[in-house]
Amino acid sequence: MSHNTFGHLFRVTTWGESHGPAIGCVVDGCPPGLVISEAEIQAFLDRRRPGQSRFTTQRREPDEVRILSGVVTDADGNLRTTGTPIALEIQNVDQRSKDYSNIADRYRPGHADFTYDAKYGLRDPRGGGRSSARETAMRVAAGAVARKVLPGVTIRGALVQMGPHVIDRARWDWDEVGNNPFFCPDPVAAAEWEIFLDGVRKEGSSTGAVIEVVAEGVPVGLGAPLYGKLDQDIASALMSINAVKGVEIGEGFAAAALSGEENADEMRIGEDGKPVFLSNHAGGILGGISSGQPIVARFAVKPTSSILTPRRSITASGEEIDVMTRGRHDPCVGIRAVPVGEAMLAIVLADHFLRNRGQIG
Amino acid sequence: MSHNTFGHLFRVTTWGESHGPAIGCVVDGCPPGLVISEAEIQAFLDRRRPGQSRFTTQRREPDEVRILSGVVTDADGNLRTTGTPIALEIQNVDQRSKDYSNIADRYRPGHADFTYDAKYGLRDPRGGGRSSARETAMRVAAGAVARKVLPGVTIRGALVQMGPHVIDRARWDWDEVGNNPFFCPDPVAAAEWEIFLDGVRKEGSSTGAVIEVVAEGVPVGLGAPLYGKLDQDIASALMSINAVKGVEIGEGFAAAALSGEENADEMRIGEDGKPVFLSNHAGGILGGISSGQPIVARFAVKPTSSILTPRRSITASGEEIDVMTRGRHDPCVGIRAVPVGEAMLAIVLADHFLRNRGQIG
Amino acid sequence: MSHNTFGHLFRVTTWGESHGPAIGCVVDGCPPGLVISEAEIQAFLDRRRPGQSRFTTQRREPDEVRILSGVVTDADGNLRTTGTPIALEIQNVDQRSKDYSNIADRYRPGHADFTYDAKYGLRDPRGGGRSSARETAMRVAAGAVARKVLPGVTIRGALVQMGPHVIDRARWDWDEVGNNPFFCPDPVAAAEWEIFLDGVRKEGSSTGAVIEVVAEGVPVGLGAPLYGKLDQDIASALMSINAVKGVEIGEGFAAAALSGEENADEMRIGEDGKPVFLSNHAGGILGGISSGQPIVARFAVKPTSSILTPRRSITASGEEIDVMTRGRHDPCVGIRAVPVGEAMLAIVLADHFLRNRGQIG
Amino acid sequence: MSHNTFGHLFRVTTWGESHGPAIGCVVDGCPPGLVISEAEIQAFLDRRRPGQSRFTTQRREPDEVRILSGVVTDADGNLRTTGTPIALEIQNVDQRSKDYSNIADRYRPGHADFTYDAKYGLRDPRGGGRSSARETAMRVAAGAVARKVLPGVTIRGALVQMGPHVIDRARWDWDEVGNNPFFCPDPVAAAEWEIFLDGVRKEGSSTGAVIEVVAEGVPVGLGAPLYGKLDQDIASALMSINAVKGVEIGEGFAAAALSGEENADEMRIGEDGKPVFLSNHAGGILGGISSGQPIVARFAVKPTSSILTPRRSITASGEEIDVMTRGRHDPCVGIRAVPVGEAMLAIVLADHFLRNRGQIG
Repeated sequence: MSHNTFGHLFRVTTWGESHGPAIGCVVDGCPPGLVISEAEIQAFLDRRRPGQSRFTTQRREPDEVRILSGVVTDADGNLRTTGTPIALEIQNVDQRSKDYSNIADRYRPGHADFTYDAKYGLRDPRGGGRSSARETAMRVAAGAVARKVLPGVTIRGALVQMGPHVIDRARWDWDEVGNNPFFCPDPVAAAEWEIFLDGVRKEGSSTGAVIEVVAEGVPVGLGAPLYGKLDQDIASALMSINAVKGVEIGEGFAAAALSGEENADEMRIGEDGKPVFLSNHAGGILGGISSGQPIVARFAVKPTSSILTPRRSITASGEEIDVMTRGRHDPCVGIRAVPVGEAMLAIVLADHFLRNRGQIG
Repeated sequence: MSHNTFGHLFRVTTWGESHGPAIGCVVDGCPPGLVISEAEIQAFLDRRRPGQSRFTTQRREPDEVRILSGVVTDADGNLRTTGTPIALEIQNVDQRSKDYSNIADRYRPGHADFTYDAKYGLRDPRGGGRSSARETAMRVAAGAVARKVLPGVTIRGALVQMGPHVIDRARWDWDEVGNNPFFCPDPVAAAEWEIFLDGVRKEGSSTGAVIEVVAEGVPVGLGAPLYGKLDQDIASALMSINAVKGVEIGEGFAAAALSGEENADEMRIGEDGKPVFLSNHAGGILGGISSGQPIVARFAVKPTSSILTPRRSITASGEEIDVMTRGRHDPCVGIRAVPVGEAMLAIVLADHFLRNRGQIG
Repeated sequence: MSHNTFGHLFRVTTWGESHGPAIGCVVDGCPPGLVISEAEIQAFLDRRRPGQSRFTTQRREPDEVRILSGVVTDADGNLRTTGTPIALEIQNVDQRSKDYSNIADRYRPGHADFTYDAKYGLRDPRGGGRSSARETAMRVAAGAVARKVLPGVTIRGALVQMGPHVIDRARWDWDEVGNNPFFCPDPVAAAEWEIFLDGVRKEGSSTGAVIEVVAEGVPVGLGAPLYGKLDQDIASALMSINAVKGVEIGEGFAAAALSGEENADEMRIGEDGKPVFLSNHAGGILGGISSGQPIVARFAVKPTSSILTPRRSITASGEEIDVMTRGRHDPCVGIRAVPVGEAMLAIVLADHFLRNRGQIG
Repeated sequence: MSHNTFGHLFRVTTWGESHGPAIGCVVDGCPPGLVISEAEIQAFLDRRRPGQSRFTTQRREPDEVRILSGVVTDADGNLRTTGTPIALEIQNVDQRSKDYSNIADRYRPGHADFTYDAKYGLRDPRGGGRSSARETAMRVAAGAVARKVLPGVTIRGALVQMGPHVIDRARWDWDEVGNNPFFCPDPVAAAEWEIFLDGVRKEGSSTGAVIEVVAEGVPVGLGAPLYGKLDQDIASALMSINAVKGVEIGEGFAAAALSGEENADEMRIGEDGKPVFLSNHAGGILGGISSGQPIVARFAVKPTSSILTPRRSITASGEEIDVMTRGRHDPCVGIRAVPVGEAMLAIVLADHFLRNRGQIG
């Protein structure tokens, strides 16, 4: 079952609400002997941390991660995984003692308020409970551990569309991703997005986005033909992120408009005598199994419903109201989804790396 | 683990290759007491069956399903499920005794030949082995059982895009879906597609497609906030179908271009005193949990790589070759994916229906 | 979930009732490239087959197993596993068309009739449905596949107690196990049991038994410290066999009466420079992980409730009755549990072998 | 997979070592709306807490549990579960800063030192790492939550054998269990055990024990016929506890010596018109499904290997040594296993209660 756990041999269980004392996760199945440190995990968390530019929520989350179990100090003073569960925890320190009673029985349009109440009969109105983006901090932390399981694999992500504005792929430069507050690989687009998003922010509006995550150096053979397809698990992983409404691999939805001739990835023997693909429409996965090409996945994030324009809604008791969401929110939640998408891709690959090693040896 | 099993409380395990003696599945966790019959299951299989028009493979598959376990005849002479595993089986009768030796070591571009060989070290070249579309017959059979678990739920599918040609949603008529060989809800588009696909077929080419599946009458509350999200499991289910490269829910990738104002589904109290949504950008799922609105999902199917135009490839022994796929194939495999998509949606909903009843009571 | 599936990386799903058209199983996760044959599997099934002496049920079950998927013929004409699911099936041929209506609403004491009816609201009265010992044939078949995954491992079983009569361990001789109809390793005990069981049989009574299963050559390191303990999964596997009421590892319940000095397995360095244990009270498992010593497990099988002496019971409609079970039954069902116990041990070890390889490499 | 997780719909994942900063668990799948408190959980923990008599380790563990997630304060000021994961945590406060270097490379006989090193290549020598009995505190905490899921069910445990000394069942009195430091239901036996265990303690020796756990009020219908047998999962749960070497249900191993006539549980219609069993040899489970009778299970705990008498062993580097375990240890670890066994039984029942409700409705 998978209420709050993701993965099989490499398994991540997250817990916690944004307004409880802490949030955390348990990473189970991590192989022993890997060097790991809180600082390394922290570095990934810092990329996701809000409040770093005017384009993300001003909520302050120091997000200091602690490793509570699963490691031992080796003779060189390094922490090494022991093969036992790794518990990671972050204290919640910025829980403003504000009054939530006014939203406790209001269903914010586009939020999970209505469905949580309908399913569970009660919910924690403070900060969105489990549906808070804060949970994704633990995904990023767990993803940092997952990367350790994947030697030689590079996993990176970038924002490729903000609202209606897409990047020019001819200008793609991974080095640019760190040079702007949007994880944008196209410096020209980044400059345009800054103007666009300032407008969105000032209007109290929000915008959607598309993120692309890429894994290079993935060995051939991860995945399985049917219900253990690598692309299936990537779709599951990315769709499990808050606000995601679509996932695609390689050519994705564009493949629907192509002919078989256009979409085929032809093969030759490379100069090193190894098979080489002449294109990557497949996004690195054939028949559910990694082909050795870069794995390329994209996911669409909807605009957050937390906007200043009042929207019509109802209360739990059936009263018709208008809802306007004040407070510290992101005009484009897709930005912070970039490191989260990378982390989920890392977790899927780590799980399949171990599974493949188990079955195939 | 999920090599060949899908679902938790309602679980489907499929087995078989297209050129073995039979294919089958085990449906585990089906509640007891449901009236079921081979004829009902057969009716769904017949919708998926190839050879019904010139637009699908001429391979003859009578696809006669047998129920081998999990049922008992009641006092009225009806078969009823007993709560024990339901084994379904279809004999393979059209296994042409052709010579596969010429493709046994060739990697057809876009097929799983290369990755299977790389992962498993050997494969069954006959008919594509487990990656054959034939496996999807068992999904349709299992989906017919899943529908029984979902009283009051209607699950339907339609082709909404063939190659570059999309339907006009203003003309959407569910009754038209059965009137053309494409499961197309728009009669004008269907007529155009017929001409288009005849051209594709005559050229020995192939084309992609987009399928939309819709579930109406789904109760509020199915799913879970994080790794048990209903949309996550739908994404996983649809991406597990052969040749699928993208999945989206509700507004999907289009949501990326919208503002929060545009994308919010406002709520009012209906005339019956119940909550009513004024739009369905969310596709019936909020925070991973069904909202009671229709669940709307789409998935993109790539054009099959089985085309008459030679493509460059290699052999297992590293020789560079040209590959042309003769034989009985579908110019648009997306057509037959419509009943398969419906079935997978039914399986996900049945599983979550039982899970929700377990946790919530 | 595990209604009808056992294992994780190596997974067995069984289906079928004794009076349906067939029974079968799906073995998923078997590594590719293993040579396998129906004859090999059949050899294990023949050891379990009833009707081979006057001490087991005279029901005739040819039990001819067919492999329906998951294999390919290699260049040498051998069947080899392909890594895809292996479907095994046995037709039911000895379904006497007798009238079950008289027992359809009677609850046989000690049988699952009452609980099945209470849980499912209906059941298949013919031949015991899923609780029939016939299901164990598929465990034996799957166990034959599992042995293939475990090179260098020898798994054997023996009956060590029949009714109140235990073997003399000083006389243990594995070669004797095949020389008597009881899988008894002690020829003196076997002769005594023959007289004892003849008496039980003639009285229409039944008796319990204890089986010991031993795996030699198991590598160090299978299992996990807590909820993946190897002994935990062995306990689960053996307790899942019909009529089993107790499981123990190594010293088992006798360990409760020992002191720490008596129970400790001391270690030395052997002549080959490797660690050697001086005793095996632990039964080959320390802290949930295999130690490299022989794994020793025992399980107790209750006497079958199918006896000729009438016992008091009730009907589904609440009438008090006396029930006497006529028909073809085993006076000591524990005998046929020996190959079943071996098979379950093989399945657990194969699963943990793959899991360990996955996590540890 | 189940390295550190137990259960399906009601799932417990534990983490932590005795010498890390904390230990904890995540209880996932708990239904919403249940009133819960740290005090209630603490009460169960206090029963397991060491240092309460001279017969348990003098290690001081305040074991103050905190609920970190999954609850909300209701209008009456009570904590209620929200259906989201409940994280429980206990700080480790009594980590004596002693020098473990002398045992870091020594394999204590009967401990998991050798197998951990062999499997993982490294281990945390401090306090036994994951194999420490300290982990069982989290089982007790999770078990307290599980009890909430089971209205009307009473789960109790008792020590029924200490070393070679068994209780007289004729004197069984549940009220006595709280009157002695052994959870012994027989006051005469308790007095004898006190003398016996004082002797064991003074010799620096240890002794084994047998615990019986009983659940009354369990509804009919929990479990499933084959790999979801209730007794199978109880066996798995109890065998997962440290030092447990055997598990039995109802008559258990004694059933092997009985005849079918003796072992059958006859049925009549009770005065209330409901089915009544005249005995309970089955231990409340028939065909893997609860019968409504009390569920009775026993498990054997071996004597701890932590004794003052030197035992022969080896070091990681292959040196032959003598090992004597000094420090704070329990002469009879079976005593503290009583609340742990109760907790594991509660967890299994809660899981099957939810699973049954899911499948059967």
